[in-house]
Amino acid sequence: MADGFVTIAHGGGGTRMQDLLRDMIFPALGGSLTAAEDAACLDIPAGRVAMTTDSFVVKPLFFSGGDIGKLAVCGTVNDLAMVGAKPLYLTLGFILEEGLSFDVLEKVLASIATTAASAGVRVVAGDTKVVERGKADGLYVNTAGLGVIPDGIEVTIAGAAPGDALIINGHIGDHGIAVLKDRGAFAFEAALDSDCAPLNGLVADMLDAGTVHSLRDPTRGGLAAALKEMSDASGLEFEVDESTIPVREEVSAICEVLGLDPLYVANEGKLLAAVPAPHEKRVLEAMRANPLGSESRVIGHAVEGRRGRVSLTGSLGSSRLLRMPSGEQLPRIC
Amino acid sequence: MADGFVTIAHGGGGTRMQDLLRDMIFPALGGSLTAAEDAACLDIPAGRVAMTTDSFVVKPLFFSGGDIGKLAVCGTVNDLAMVGAKPLYLTLGFILEEGLSFDVLEKVLASIATTAASAGVRVVAGDTKVVERGKADGLYVNTAGLGVIPDGIEVTIAGAAPGDALIINGHIGDHGIAVLKDRGAFAFEAALDSDCAPLNGLVADMLDAGTVHSLRDPTRGGLAAALKEMSDASGLEFEVDESTIPVREEVSAICEVLGLDPLYVANEGKLLAAVPAPHEKRVLEAMRANPLGSESRVIGHAVEGRRGRVSLTGSLGSSRLLRMPSGEQLPRIC
Repeated sequence: MADGFVTIAHGGGGTRMQDLLRDMIFPALGGSLTAAEDAACLDIPAGRVAMTTDSFVVKPLFFSGGDIGKLAVCGTVNDLAMVGAKPLYLTLGFILEEGLSFDVLEKVLASIATTAASAGVRVVAGDTKVVERGKADGLYVNTAGLGVIPDGIEVTIAGAAPGDALIINGHIGDHGIAVLKDRGAFAFEAALDSDCAPLNGLVADMLDAGTVHSLRDPTRGGLAAALKEMSDASGLEFEVDESTIPVREEVSAICEVLGLDPLYVANEGKLLAAVPAPHEKRVLEAMRANPLGSESRVIGHAVEGRRGRVSLTGSLGSSRLLRMPSGEQLPRIC
Repeated sequence: MADGFVTIAHGGGGTRMQDLLRDMIFPALGGSLTAAEDAACLDIPAGRVAMTTDSFVVKPLFFSGGDIGKLAVCGTVNDLAMVGAKPLYLTLGFILEEGLSFDVLEKVLASIATTAASAGVRVVAGDTKVVERGKADGLYVNTAGLGVIPDGIEVTIAGAAPGDALIINGHIGDHGIAVLKDRGAFAFEAALDSDCAPLNGLVADMLDAGTVHSLRDPTRGGLAAALKEMSDASGLEFEVDESTIPVREEVSAICEVLGLDPLYVANEGKLLAAVPAPHEKRVLEAMRANPLGSESRVIGHAVEGRRGRVSLTGSLGSSRLLRMPSGEQLPRIC
């Protein structure tokens, strides 16, 4: 089947679709998924549940350090983790373009399976639609996710308190620049992978170590949007020391050439955390002990002041106010 | 805003996207939805939960009796109802094409809101992506849904038992033919609406009235696919009296002209039920008392025999075996 192509009939609810499901999609995603039922029946412990969704239209489908399948799983797992939930289940909706090679679909499925396994989540329901040539860009993926919020966990976008340390778990801008690179946008070589990763393990380590008031993954809009949104929601002013924000040399150099600001470039394996001072050391240690947080550091603090005001102090002591981006510098980044 | 157009920046995670959410999407969907959190936090009673997803690529976006928004809500609500679940929450993922008129988006949103309210479900999380001109057909929608399965309810695709009555809740083929009509496929006029409707109320009435072994909504692949799938899953043979299957005259006439078989045409407000004989009368009465089931009738029975074998007896006593469709006769029907 892998040397074939998607046809309109594969989305038609008949035997061709059954073939696609039986021969490719179900084997790739593991035995628990079947076409039989219209909805998956799941046992959920009583309590608070988190639910989220994301569509993915990244271009190209495969990029250094990831692909649309890995991105789809990580994006949804991370959204659940950002409210302190333990991600459990995913749904998967494909919109396939007629003529898409099964080889591509198979690679994306394998990547979804690997990433879901590493994040400890299970794909429990799915849907496949096919549109005519020219009506999608290869394939689009939607994932929705379900997780449980453990008792006692209260992590909200508005949760930051005065004095909280603002912590980032590593270098920013890798994802956006890696994807841009793989669009052939540069005339020069650059060794750079997307940071695309499921962050639920890191968040679990942080919550085990201490109290976390607020979490945000700086995806579209970059760290700038995450800082602004968290400051807006909490009603606090944020003071950030720009020189402490980790940016890889390659990313910094490419951004300079292209006139981009790494603060506004998308990440897919980063989180911004607001952590109360008494817990800062323990949480930071737990983060650094996790491979996805080894470069974690404090970049600033929440203070009483004007809601939505984020001031960036540069290495020379000069200060500027962070502005919310209007759109995305790099479209189709996720 | 309604006289404007979607631009790439509206999907960028910045202020333009915030404007779109604040000025159009949140007001349309009601106050409970906010951009603030990465995931919605929900209180769910302990027990079994049903989860499902569907993407919608119907063409045209607006058709007689419905539109892509109404379809998206109904499709997901109905998938939850088919396992006996009470639908509670939906997520909503938009893929918008650059240049889409806000007027179109606003109408779709209004339709989603109206349909969700009538089905008693709440949109709790969403996502908006924008792709360049020519990379989507106006807009695509994904919905994922969450529902709770009441204690004691056990409705599965494999549940049919020998002797069960096979019941349909009304005329088949309306949706597919209505959409086809609105593509301008016919040279003649036809007054025909899609049957698109949320079926959770009807299913609740049925389950209150008696035992239902199995449910399936005959969407893509039509009633034929639903009968075959239910027969396959239960391991039973199905005997269907073709003359009892209700088909509107208009649908029948158009199918004849176009060489289509109404059995294979998609429905969006129909269900096929397998009901044990002792409960048949009560369940049928309950169905007929509901506006979405007023034309309900028994079309056949499940019997011991060969798995997946569905025999259709015609009005003249002749019999034929139903075949699973290979693809969909009418692409982009949902």
